[in-house]
Amino acid sequence: MLSPDKHFTIGSMLFPGIDQIDLTGPFEVLSAIPNSTLHVVGKTKSPIKDFHGLSLVADMTYDEVVDLDVLHVPGGPGQQALMEDEETLNFIRKHASKATYVFSVCTGALLCGAAGLLKGKRATTHWASQHLLPYFGATPVNQRVVIDGNLIFAAGVTSGIDGALHVAALLRGQPAAEQIQLYMQYQPEPPFDAGTPDRASKQVLENARNAVSKLTADRLATAKKISALLGIKV
Amino acid sequence: MLSPDKHFTIGSMLFPGIDQIDLTGPFEVLSAIPNSTLHVVGKTKSPIKDFHGLSLVADMTYDEVVDLDVLHVPGGPGQQALMEDEETLNFIRKHASKATYVFSVCTGALLCGAAGLLKGKRATTHWASQHLLPYFGATPVNQRVVIDGNLIFAAGVTSGIDGALHVAALLRGQPAAEQIQLYMQYQPEPPFDAGTPDRASKQVLENARNAVSKLTADRLATAKKISALLGIKV
Repeated sequence: MLSPDKHFTIGSMLFPGIDQIDLTGPFEVLSAIPNSTLHVVGKTKSPIKDFHGLSLVADMTYDEVVDLDVLHVPGGPGQQALMEDEETLNFIRKHASKATYVFSVCTGALLCGAAGLLKGKRATTHWASQHLLPYFGATPVNQRVVIDGNLIFAAGVTSGIDGALHVAALLRGQPAAEQIQLYMQYQPEPPFDAGTPDRASKQVLENARNAVSKLTADRLATAKKISALLGIKV
Repeated sequence: MLSPDKHFTIGSMLFPGIDQIDLTGPFEVLSAIPNSTLHVVGKTKSPIKDFHGLSLVADMTYDEVVDLDVLHVPGGPGQQALMEDEETLNFIRKHASKATYVFSVCTGALLCGAAGLLKGKRATTHWASQHLLPYFGATPVNQRVVIDGNLIFAAGVTSGIDGALHVAALLRGQPAAEQIQLYMQYQPEPPFDAGTPDRASKQVLENARNAVSKLTADRLATAKKISALLGIKV
């Protein structure tokens, strides 16, 4: 926990084709932490669209960011286009090397992997991408939130909300995190019991897997390529 | 449930000072419903900021919207500035009169109330605003999601995710909603037990109440004024 008197800065990455709630779920928590500033950081400050069409705007470009205490790396289908984008990977490497925490959500973990951060780490990501983590040198852990050193990993999509509450507590203590949780009335009641592969029906799981099969195959091919570059044997 | 062959249109309202997750939580669910289109609708298509500074952009103005099957009304501190804004209230009235469902999240219920939709209805809203519902003629119900006829109410902030899964199931059936839930890995694990006033510690609740006390007082004054205009006796 940091001193309440220490102001800190969080950077949340934004890119085209992001899954918006990987950003906006944690934003709801992290932007409410006392004595802190959150910047939404992108390659450009022009509006970009998430993979379902929501328009969001970064308030700072990569180049404008100076120091970050927390680097927040969301995922979503658009992550795939950045896996070999040196500008983005260098941004992640630069800030990860200095930040108190790096917080990845969903397939943001794959971006962290491509940046070389996952070697020898325990990690998690979206259920459909868990099998890709070893290509970046990580051990997949089937938990909603995994913390290894200064790396915090949330699993798929909405798990970013749970992960962000962990981050808030690490930064400012549990009562501050609880106050944020109460404000946002986060006492979830999912109407159905289908939130993970082992809870969903066989048919629902099959449909969900089919819907992401092309993207998952592309991600695997990229993971193999990067694995070779990083010198990792799977 | 609508026929899978029937394309439908959802409109999610965006305004300055919105609590962004009242919009983005449901967006994650609703934008994934098969054979549907979601528009983010605002007074302008220029970027606006949520109450913690996230920049979002509407893709359609009030005037451009033709027919909506679902009207989604988010809340947040910025709702207060719209309570007597006839352009906004007329937009809500016009589309609510024709929509299959009206879905309010958090203090979006107060906007629906100001538009006259709550008379004689069971409703819910953010815990700090529950006591305001009778001024709009509604009976407050302490549930996370309340459905009365074609009105669906989610309580505070993150309850919009649960509410949206109900809406998805009403529109396209439970398996379609479950597939969305699985994709978004919505199997929440809040790290703390403080998500409602009766779960939070006394100190956390007091701090959270104090943080919204000025806004709550303003909302009460407005509710009383609108109550008189609507001819509702509390």
